[in-house]
Amino acid sequence: MNYFTTLLANDLAVPVEVSTALAENLFTTNNVWMMLCTALVFIMHLGFATVETGFGQAKNTVNILFKNTITPVIGILTYAMVGFYLMYPGFESPGWFSFNVEGWNLFWFSPASADVSAGYAAGGYTYWTDFLFQAMFAATAATIVSGAIAERVKLWAYLIFTLIFVGIVYPLIGSWQWGGGALKAMGFYDFAGSTLVHSVGGWGALAGVILVGPRIGKYVNGQTVNKPAVSVPLAVIGAFLLWLGWFGFNGGSVLSANPALVSLVLVTTSLGACAGAIGALFTSYVAFKRLDLGMVLNGILAGLVGITAGADVITPGAAILIGFIAGFLVVVSSILLDKLKLDDVVGAVSVHLTCGVWGTLAVGIFSTNPDHSFLTQLIGVAICGATAFTSAFVIFYILKKTIGIRVSEDHERDGLDSHEHGIRGYTIVFDE
Amino acid sequence: MNYFTTLLANDLAVPVEVSTALAENLFTTNNVWMMLCTALVFIMHLGFATVETGFGQAKNTVNILFKNTITPVIGILTYAMVGFYLMYPGFESPGWFSFNVEGWNLFWFSPASADVSAGYAAGGYTYWTDFLFQAMFAATAATIVSGAIAERVKLWAYLIFTLIFVGIVYPLIGSWQWGGGALKAMGFYDFAGSTLVHSVGGWGALAGVILVGPRIGKYVNGQTVNKPAVSVPLAVIGAFLLWLGWFGFNGGSVLSANPALVSLVLVTTSLGACAGAIGALFTSYVAFKRLDLGMVLNGILAGLVGITAGADVITPGAAILIGFIAGFLVVVSSILLDKLKLDDVVGAVSVHLTCGVWGTLAVGIFSTNPDHSFLTQLIGVAICGATAFTSAFVIFYILKKTIGIRVSEDHERDGLDSHEHGIRGYTIVFDE
Amino acid sequence: MNYFTTLLANDLAVPVEVSTALAENLFTTNNVWMMLCTALVFIMHLGFATVETGFGQAKNTVNILFKNTITPVIGILTYAMVGFYLMYPGFESPGWFSFNVEGWNLFWFSPASADVSAGYAAGGYTYWTDFLFQAMFAATAATIVSGAIAERVKLWAYLIFTLIFVGIVYPLIGSWQWGGGALKAMGFYDFAGSTLVHSVGGWGALAGVILVGPRIGKYVNGQTVNKPAVSVPLAVIGAFLLWLGWFGFNGGSVLSANPALVSLVLVTTSLGACAGAIGALFTSYVAFKRLDLGMVLNGILAGLVGITAGADVITPGAAILIGFIAGFLVVVSSILLDKLKLDDVVGAVSVHLTCGVWGTLAVGIFSTNPDHSFLTQLIGVAICGATAFTSAFVIFYILKKTIGIRVSEDHERDGLDSHEHGIRGYTIVFDE
Repeated sequence: MNYFTTLLANDLAVPVEVSTALAENLFTTNNVWMMLCTALVFIMHLGFATVETGFGQAKNTVNILFKNTITPVIGILTYAMVGFYLMYPGFESPGWFSFNVEGWNLFWFSPASADVSAGYAAGGYTYWTDFLFQAMFAATAATIVSGAIAERVKLWAYLIFTLIFVGIVYPLIGSWQWGGGALKAMGFYDFAGSTLVHSVGGWGALAGVILVGPRIGKYVNGQTVNKPAVSVPLAVIGAFLLWLGWFGFNGGSVLSANPALVSLVLVTTSLGACAGAIGALFTSYVAFKRLDLGMVLNGILAGLVGITAGADVITPGAAILIGFIAGFLVVVSSILLDKLKLDDVVGAVSVHLTCGVWGTLAVGIFSTNPDHSFLTQLIGVAICGATAFTSAFVIFYILKKTIGIRVSEDHERDGLDSHEHGIRGYTIVFDE
Repeated sequence: MNYFTTLLANDLAVPVEVSTALAENLFTTNNVWMMLCTALVFIMHLGFATVETGFGQAKNTVNILFKNTITPVIGILTYAMVGFYLMYPGFESPGWFSFNVEGWNLFWFSPASADVSAGYAAGGYTYWTDFLFQAMFAATAATIVSGAIAERVKLWAYLIFTLIFVGIVYPLIGSWQWGGGALKAMGFYDFAGSTLVHSVGGWGALAGVILVGPRIGKYVNGQTVNKPAVSVPLAVIGAFLLWLGWFGFNGGSVLSANPALVSLVLVTTSLGACAGAIGALFTSYVAFKRLDLGMVLNGILAGLVGITAGADVITPGAAILIGFIAGFLVVVSSILLDKLKLDDVVGAVSVHLTCGVWGTLAVGIFSTNPDHSFLTQLIGVAICGATAFTSAFVIFYILKKTIGIRVSEDHERDGLDSHEHGIRGYTIVFDE
Repeated sequence: MNYFTTLLANDLAVPVEVSTALAENLFTTNNVWMMLCTALVFIMHLGFATVETGFGQAKNTVNILFKNTITPVIGILTYAMVGFYLMYPGFESPGWFSFNVEGWNLFWFSPASADVSAGYAAGGYTYWTDFLFQAMFAATAATIVSGAIAERVKLWAYLIFTLIFVGIVYPLIGSWQWGGGALKAMGFYDFAGSTLVHSVGGWGALAGVILVGPRIGKYVNGQTVNKPAVSVPLAVIGAFLLWLGWFGFNGGSVLSANPALVSLVLVTTSLGACAGAIGALFTSYVAFKRLDLGMVLNGILAGLVGITAGADVITPGAAILIGFIAGFLVVVSSILLDKLKLDDVVGAVSVHLTCGVWGTLAVGIFSTNPDHSFLTQLIGVAICGATAFTSAFVIFYILKKTIGIRVSEDHERDGLDSHEHGIRGYTIVFDE
């Protein structure tokens, strides 16, 4: 915004009312963009809900929907209470832990909304917009876990896990980069969260999958038995809503409506998604000899996750390459996980962890910014991964040893809906 | 916009071209926000359609969808012909009835679009944007009624009711507050329509439920028999789309893109929704001993309805309290209605009437604006409620005594789809 | 933007920093609007997917979804590689064919995003935004074809057709008008694509329907046998998403956020949709003696297609008339096609071709711009129609004579899902 700096420097020539009005107009436009991106990220939660429900089995429908409805609710509330101030603490020097006490006071005890806005007048959005945009992100990490361990996890265990993982683990790791902490100081780059959101969620999912164990009947005599999806249309609705939401997820991560930067990000994001679909289509055709719609949908998501770390620092050509490789990786990763008998209902580990790591490393390869290096990216991935995986493992382990994290065998066979919720997902005769 | 006033006052110093350009830029941004809020409110009609269809029975699917598709169509057309000019008549002195004849002429016989815009250049949006945003609201009131009396109401009776209720009753009541009429003069406050939209619709629903009577087999030997929802995923899609739409419903009700105000409204709205979910979750768990997803979804809607009257004049803390209580009330209200044998298919009376009243009264308790008083809010609620309920009751009563408002017993048992529409909602074998 | 011209003319009085800042602010707002319209057009692809899946049969669900998922993927990628530069070649004199080599280089080998934006600084959006908005349009033409020939077309044939039709035919025809080519020079007018998008797709669909032939069992002993829709709720979701997307499709075609023009367009668009619903409702009630929800949904789409050519140059009254007639035509057209034994699964030819032609001609009747003439519109319709139909016919014909365009009889009876994709759309017992 150098024109504005120029204006300020020339305030003899330009009346101060004019320079103020110019800045306020731009601020209003930036804030509109950020609020709409917030709405787009919000709708991703419906995307996750429909993808997971569609790929799941009829008998667990209500349970999956319940988790996916409550997850953003818990996410937003814990972020308002703890996460926001933990994630953006305003580190004085690059650090690993701090808490923004003034921010907390401002949020809960501000005298009037105008004051809250004023504190941010130099930036592209208000304090409220900042909170809500980031809050919509926060719940994503837990939702990723939910998809992987669906159909056999105990609901209360999942809710407690979510409370801690979204309330503390996610914002803590986020603070190291987006909050101006130690990773940022190290030169690590993660534009919109291939690592900070997606692989953090993916590591949580991996820890969950390991500790909860595979569903009954998934791995029989060395064979993988795939449960048919209850409703492929629902899964497609979900994948499209996630792609739509990514317009806000990546587009909003510019943190202003900067035309050149935001529109580049939308182009690289969409090209990444398309190339991911093509990559997964070819790879799965070679592997399974069929046109596998489920893999194409996961390929789209893989491309989106892969592009997320560097969407603003790569060319369209690099975006296509990153997306295509992500589409290839998501198929290979899914096959490998099944070989390891790690049962992930919707492929969340392959989509979010494998491709989240790939996307973050790809910044070190394809970034047009010479400051970005593969090694720094690798170190950042390792630090975040170790923290996320260990935290999730410990939380799930403690839950397993106390209240238990897995429903009973009968309960699992009958479906989670009948036991925990007392209603069915559909009044339909299913062929299971 | 005090900087702009300052500019105008200083026009010796600031060239008039600059002040005009500044005003036009801000106008463009405000108008963009309002148009996008219009799109968000529009999608709420899909939200209502899917919530009602999902909670309904398979045999009435097409009928429910037909009503919910035609309702916004009728709403927008009647608003263009009558409602808009009745609701915003430009009262010279605070009044109860007037009609904006010039506005009607402008809409239907304006020579060019530029002139239509010019009349609004001082505000935040064009005449066309104003019309469309408000038109999207208008149909909501009838949609609320539709959900309550589904599965046994005669389609033609519902359509005639909608024509009158949306064409005349809703805009008339709206004019008293948003049109600058008598309630406004009295000091009543209803930011985005807890009363003017939601409880007006809710009173209409109550009148309908009383006159149409419960579905066959709903209340048997003093027991309430709940019909299972045909598709819980559809209902969840609906609830999320309504939450999304509420970003525009409340966010657009600021009537500009004012950054501090709009972003505060989005935060209070989202916190209200979350707290409503938690309130309904706890209350229904105590009442029914199960994790009741239907109640959680209605809790989200209850929180949203409750927050709507005061979203711009409350703190985040108050938003959580209002939402939580709304979530509690929606469960209690649903139980009470069943005790009174008032059969409301989707809980529309509990969500929109009970929580609409609560939200409006809550302004009298939690508003940071000292001009707002509980007593005035109560009087406003009573005046709007008496008018809406009486009007709806009279319309339904006349229809009942003339063309009839309820389908035949055979027709109801077979499902409305087979008789009125001749097709089924799904080619599926249902277990009913 | 005359105020800005005035500013530039007065640059002695207005500091250049101020005029630059004013222009940049407006550019940012315009670009925000265009990016959000891009997102809205994107979601139309989910709308097409759900309409087609909902109206189709259970056994072909995965196949339909596969096509509708891959179509935008192919559309965006081919548009990035070929279409964009073919459609906007920057004709030196009005012409029929050219290719923007500089644009291609800019897209794939631009040194930095800022330069790409700079080239467009005089307009309302960046080069990236321009690309993505138009890319979202491009895939629409093929999607229209997909709906008509669903349930019996060979997948690979459809994919190859799409590659050529979206990659070359659509952008070539588009260049004649939107690229500043020969039709534009002739005075033809097509605001947002009643002809350039919808009837081009519709002609492709007609060619496909003729060459692929009707589904087995559709026309038996002179009777038309309608296959029941697998899920009417899915079709309704699709129709609403398409209406929502049309806010961006038409609203974005203003190519800026011009408040008066864009908001007029949104009003005429919505009124057209509503009037289309009413027109189709009455016509189908007369024809079939039932409240035909499928026809109402197609009436909404018909009204939207009809309004698209002239949405910015007509009054609200004309919008209602155009929409109502479109709603009438879509029903009549569907009846006629069945009489001709042209089997169109979702009514795509009636919606997009019939009403696309009607809408384009309607500009010659209702436009408030005296330069628009019925004859010129007719000539434009004929030129685009002849090109689109011939191209599509030739492509399908060659495919028919080589790899074949129709699945085997067994394959069709079993459903396409089991053979090509190996999974089913639902784990449900269907009553077929």
